[in-house]
Amino acid sequence: MKQEKDLKNYAIRTDLIVDVFDSQAETDGILTTQEEQDGIQILEVTITKEENPLKKKKGKYITITYQDVTDKENAKKLEKILVKELKKLYTNLQITEQMKCLVVGLGNRASTPDALGPKTIENILVTRYLYEIEEIEVDANYRNVASFIPGVTGNTGIESSDIILGIVEKIQPDFVLIVDALASSSMDRVNKTIQITDSGIHPGSGVYNDRKELSLETLHVPVISIGIPTVIEAFVLVSDTIQYLLKHFSYNKENYQKNKLIPVTLRNYQNYEGELSHQEKTKLLGEVGNLSEEEVKELIFEVLTPIGYNMMVTPKEIDFVIDKTSEVLANAINQSLHKNFDR
Amino acid sequence: MKQEKDLKNYAIRTDLIVDVFDSQAETDGILTTQEEQDGIQILEVTITKEENPLKKKKGKYITITYQDVTDKENAKKLEKILVKELKKLYTNLQITEQMKCLVVGLGNRASTPDALGPKTIENILVTRYLYEIEEIEVDANYRNVASFIPGVTGNTGIESSDIILGIVEKIQPDFVLIVDALASSSMDRVNKTIQITDSGIHPGSGVYNDRKELSLETLHVPVISIGIPTVIEAFVLVSDTIQYLLKHFSYNKENYQKNKLIPVTLRNYQNYEGELSHQEKTKLLGEVGNLSEEEVKELIFEVLTPIGYNMMVTPKEIDFVIDKTSEVLANAINQSLHKNFDR
Amino acid sequence: MKQEKDLKNYAIRTDLIVDVFDSQAETDGILTTQEEQDGIQILEVTITKEENPLKKKKGKYITITYQDVTDKENAKKLEKILVKELKKLYTNLQITEQMKCLVVGLGNRASTPDALGPKTIENILVTRYLYEIEEIEVDANYRNVASFIPGVTGNTGIESSDIILGIVEKIQPDFVLIVDALASSSMDRVNKTIQITDSGIHPGSGVYNDRKELSLETLHVPVISIGIPTVIEAFVLVSDTIQYLLKHFSYNKENYQKNKLIPVTLRNYQNYEGELSHQEKTKLLGEVGNLSEEEVKELIFEVLTPIGYNMMVTPKEIDFVIDKTSEVLANAINQSLHKNFDR
Amino acid sequence: MKQEKDLKNYAIRTDLIVDVFDSQAETDGILTTQEEQDGIQILEVTITKEENPLKKKKGKYITITYQDVTDKENAKKLEKILVKELKKLYTNLQITEQMKCLVVGLGNRASTPDALGPKTIENILVTRYLYEIEEIEVDANYRNVASFIPGVTGNTGIESSDIILGIVEKIQPDFVLIVDALASSSMDRVNKTIQITDSGIHPGSGVYNDRKELSLETLHVPVISIGIPTVIEAFVLVSDTIQYLLKHFSYNKENYQKNKLIPVTLRNYQNYEGELSHQEKTKLLGEVGNLSEEEVKELIFEVLTPIGYNMMVTPKEIDFVIDKTSEVLANAINQSLHKNFDR
Repeated sequence: MKQEKDLKNYAIRTDLIVDVFDSQAETDGILTTQEEQDGIQILEVTITKEENPLKKKKGKYITITYQDVTDKENAKKLEKILVKELKKLYTNLQITEQMKCLVVGLGNRASTPDALGPKTIENILVTRYLYEIEEIEVDANYRNVASFIPGVTGNTGIESSDIILGIVEKIQPDFVLIVDALASSSMDRVNKTIQITDSGIHPGSGVYNDRKELSLETLHVPVISIGIPTVIEAFVLVSDTIQYLLKHFSYNKENYQKNKLIPVTLRNYQNYEGELSHQEKTKLLGEVGNLSEEEVKELIFEVLTPIGYNMMVTPKEIDFVIDKTSEVLANAINQSLHKNFDR
Repeated sequence: MKQEKDLKNYAIRTDLIVDVFDSQAETDGILTTQEEQDGIQILEVTITKEENPLKKKKGKYITITYQDVTDKENAKKLEKILVKELKKLYTNLQITEQMKCLVVGLGNRASTPDALGPKTIENILVTRYLYEIEEIEVDANYRNVASFIPGVTGNTGIESSDIILGIVEKIQPDFVLIVDALASSSMDRVNKTIQITDSGIHPGSGVYNDRKELSLETLHVPVISIGIPTVIEAFVLVSDTIQYLLKHFSYNKENYQKNKLIPVTLRNYQNYEGELSHQEKTKLLGEVGNLSEEEVKELIFEVLTPIGYNMMVTPKEIDFVIDKTSEVLANAINQSLHKNFDR
Repeated sequence: MKQEKDLKNYAIRTDLIVDVFDSQAETDGILTTQEEQDGIQILEVTITKEENPLKKKKGKYITITYQDVTDKENAKKLEKILVKELKKLYTNLQITEQMKCLVVGLGNRASTPDALGPKTIENILVTRYLYEIEEIEVDANYRNVASFIPGVTGNTGIESSDIILGIVEKIQPDFVLIVDALASSSMDRVNKTIQITDSGIHPGSGVYNDRKELSLETLHVPVISIGIPTVIEAFVLVSDTIQYLLKHFSYNKENYQKNKLIPVTLRNYQNYEGELSHQEKTKLLGEVGNLSEEEVKELIFEVLTPIGYNMMVTPKEIDFVIDKTSEVLANAINQSLHKNFDR
Repeated sequence: MKQEKDLKNYAIRTDLIVDVFDSQAETDGILTTQEEQDGIQILEVTITKEENPLKKKKGKYITITYQDVTDKENAKKLEKILVKELKKLYTNLQITEQMKCLVVGLGNRASTPDALGPKTIENILVTRYLYEIEEIEVDANYRNVASFIPGVTGNTGIESSDIILGIVEKIQPDFVLIVDALASSSMDRVNKTIQITDSGIHPGSGVYNDRKELSLETLHVPVISIGIPTVIEAFVLVSDTIQYLLKHFSYNKENYQKNKLIPVTLRNYQNYEGELSHQEKTKLLGEVGNLSEEEVKELIFEVLTPIGYNMMVTPKEIDFVIDKTSEVLANAINQSLHKNFDR
């Protein structure tokens, strides 16, 4: 039945490990370290067993949580951390300075939130063609780097993974870096989380298609993917808001009980910890009030599927955010790849 | 109190008359005609009294409701109707063929859903500079037309209305056409409704600012504005979905009672007329279940205001839709202005 | 010696057969037909022997010479002829309606005159992904078509031919269409000539690099390339102008002898047939005056090589011309590929 | 007679004072200072008399000559000098920190070499709208700045000067900064010269139109224009090449006499000082060989006028150069206007 398939797909489709990760979850086969630097959080999850409670592929998952990248200071801090984490991953994967890299930018240049990959590629310093010219001796401080924008299937008629497979076979890089915009399953993470992983990627998994995986198994060289959620699906916005509705009520209730009057725009309830009772929730939101977050998401997903489900939610200043984020990514990638890259 | 102001602003900020119009509302001072042609609905509301139940300015409001404009046939039909309605309005406003026109495209070219105005302007046939050259005698079948893209205040630091006022004073057109992308208060209308009015426009009213009006009163020549909702505010999506949740439940209930099993994607409940009882609504959604649509909107607006309210919701293929819509608009405007415009 | 190599490269680098074709040249191994329709000239040269005086590869070379494509009427006529010539070529190459096509747009999207290929691709109707989905039965009136923009080596670090080879191997089309902007060796032909050939193409041959050929031999399927000269090299402009200087003088001389006074802008000397004597040429332009056209080109090439040779010459309205030309190409290609393509 | 007019226009149309300036020319009414810093030349010409041998308007003309701005080090040096020169000019014009500025970017965004103005504006930090909001107290380290892109007459039908006049009257800035791309009369200066002047500007003077001047006289506030030549006219390329032909011959002759064999690409003749004799020039280039540089330009202009004169010559990498140059300009302008602008 189609419905089952959709819902199941939904259930597993989250690209971000933080969406399924629970700090208590550290069990056999899952190692985690957490760190903070310059106000930026770095969570490293290593999955060592194929069978694991997170139902994720084996590999390293680095989640970097940052604030507004349109602020220059934040951008610089994030860039620094990205360089460090990428280099650590290279070491871990035994990627040496002599190894050739192909950087791929997935996504649709014409759709602002999906243009992150292509925009990043535009600023990658490529050197491969210099290495190809016999007479030129390339400065060893510059790695052999090529880059590529495969476009989207809707425009080319070809699956991105086929294009990338074809090129990888032809030019034989020693490792592949893939940049992609993701869909988030939480409003809080959009444009504020970077996930770096060596476990592979499914291009376009955000649109519920079964696409071929890009990974060590399919490309036969290490694959590092860098993903940033840049949109929220409509059902995420709705279900998040329903949670906020409960929180907002709870927060207001407490303040009114304390006779505090707080204007709407200053009601900083987001981090409020108080909880409504089961009874209060029922009074306010009926049966829906007592569903789990996951159940609300499935419910809203089911409601929105038959009608104009084809909606995406973005911050209003998305074009500016994508510009800045792609700059930070390109700078960090360039520095991690080339010893001598002067920002 | 800021909250009151915001909510009041919200209450009056709908740009579309169809959002407040109720077919029963025809009273003294409000005339309406309705028509359908080629599957496209044309609603004409004429407000003749300053004081009216719709709380809208005096003037003609033409609302054209159409289907998917990325379909060539639909696009052609819509274009034809637009030309007809624009010409009728010219006649009504005593705009003759000799009169000089300035076409203005409001909005931000860099933000896809807001680029409708600037993109339309790119395809307007301008002739004014030919009329300015003494030695050239311009074919009388081409009207004296100039066009202009004022940009957005965030980029220029100048209010669009100031820029337009300055240019109108300088070049003295006989009438002004303004194209703008609007925010919709309903998911169903986004990219499916065109409103043409001679009552004036508040540039950027979609972002809750008090901007100076562009109208006959301020520009001293007739002003025709053409607006299309291209985004929904986040709170609209959420409150619409809550209504759909109730409808969806009601629809399912009936089908299950009839022992019909309908897959999610085929549950065409949108036009289902059945209603849940007060009690059922309470059971399902608590107090929220029994709020009016308007009250739910205000509630969600209040919940979303303090947190990342700054979200917009667009169809996923928005870049393609804006391209096509701006083509249709430009073609229709060109044909309405120039006798000899060959599409 | 580098110089020799450069000059030799220059000598053979003309992409257009009309640049080397001489109507008297019809000899054994070269067949030509010439035709005019709607003011558009169609020259078909078929080279049947590997060894031939034109030093071109075996194959068909169709040269279409047209006027200003920014004129709608001209554009429509050209489109019609393009469709006809493409279909004739398909028949000739035994390309049937069932055969799968890959359309490739060479060139740099960021450089206006070189964006012809990528801009054309943006409007190609692709269907391949529909054919890939098992559950969908595609209307047989739509051919299986994919498209692709490989980018330029300077941006990707990868030769376009490697990218295309990789993709062709992966998706296995039955024939390949390649669109490219060329450099012209004559001011008169820029944006006024289309060459269609089945003999293959050297991507980027305009920039004096030895690139791998794309042809039946390398891709193992028929390759049809469609090229339009959109820029002139600086040395072409200079040497053409030196020829014009002589012609202009000759034309003026005759008119002054006849006591005609013609204002500069009306001196229609371009098609003037009169020739200066050897002595007159020497007086006017010294030794340079008596060099052959080819010799002047080589001389100017030699002068410009050491200094800022890196110049390109384009018409001032090039952005507009490229927009229109890519529309015409895309429309024609779509009609030639899909039986049911409705313009 | 049209010809006379054209040639006269040509004669006076050079936008750059360096094109007409002769270091010996320092006479009554013309003051010059010359300076070099970090390999960048700064020539300041002050014209104090309306009647002067340079036939230029009274005012300061600062000419900055720099090398390749796509090199990061060069770009930084140039930026620093630009800031210093702009600030000196502000002091000179008694522009204080409290004074409001309007920054205008002339030119056509769609034509790469002409996009310099619009692209610069995109990165100008504007603050005017903050000053307009009563409740906000703007940090005094940020000047009141607005910016604007008027577009080109061919697209808007309105003269840029009319648009700017209209806006200046409306928003009343205390001074105006105008950024524009110019046509150069020498290959050596293209993308390597910045002219800053307080004497005003004729928008679009590059295209031989009589446009209204933008200056202190017409706008009633100080006007500082910043212009960079980004294209060469075709006739400039040709006449420059004819000069190079003579130089090249002279250089080769000497080297062959010394039995030196130098490959074409290494013939660094550009700065070679040797001159051919009158007789040698005649032998080589006939009468043309002995015309003055100015006369050759007029001759070539006359030859190219009746045929496709509408050509522009740009470096091949123009899109990249314009990107970098507009960044440098915007950074320098921002720093000169805002005390606290952090690059």
